[in-house]
Amino acid sequence: MKATVRIMLKTGVLDPQGKAIEHALAALGFSGAGEVRQGKLITLELDETDPDRAREKVREMCEKLLANTVIEDYEIGIGE
Amino acid sequence: MKATVRIMLKTGVLDPQGKAIEHALAALGFSGAGEVRQGKLITLELDETDPDRAREKVREMCEKLLANTVIEDYEIGIGE
Repeated sequence: MKATVRIMLKTGVLDPQGKAIEHALAALGFSGAGEVRQGKLITLELDETDPDRAREKVREMCEKLLANTVIEDYEIGIGE
Repeated sequence: MKATVRIMLKTGVLDPQGKAIEHALAALGFSGAGEVRQGKLITLELDETDPDRAREKVREMCEKLLANTVIEDYEIGIGE
């Protein structure tokens, strides 16, 4: 079963990568783009076939390894 | 209008970050997780109000700056 994890910095946490992209876009002549934020997208294949158990397993992975929950929020998609 | 860009390495391109995560998950006792790939997720706010024009603008941003189209695929979401 496929799982997708979207990890973004929490609102209010400074995002230097996003800012760098925003400035680069402006320098390239793209106007009207703001609030650029960059996060991580992790996809994985799980042996688990039950969607609820798969989600719970990925949630544990996020809490223990994938996300830094002090500064990051995560969102889990199962079977996407 | 909000736009989301999902950038992943193309299938077949070696993903050392994904491999590192896969090994770390195994070391932490998570079994049954494979094919881990890590990509980028970029969100931005556009002045553009027309969804088609917004998508076209973001596509240009991807081609010129956000994605390395030699090794990466991108997917654009508008208004998500």
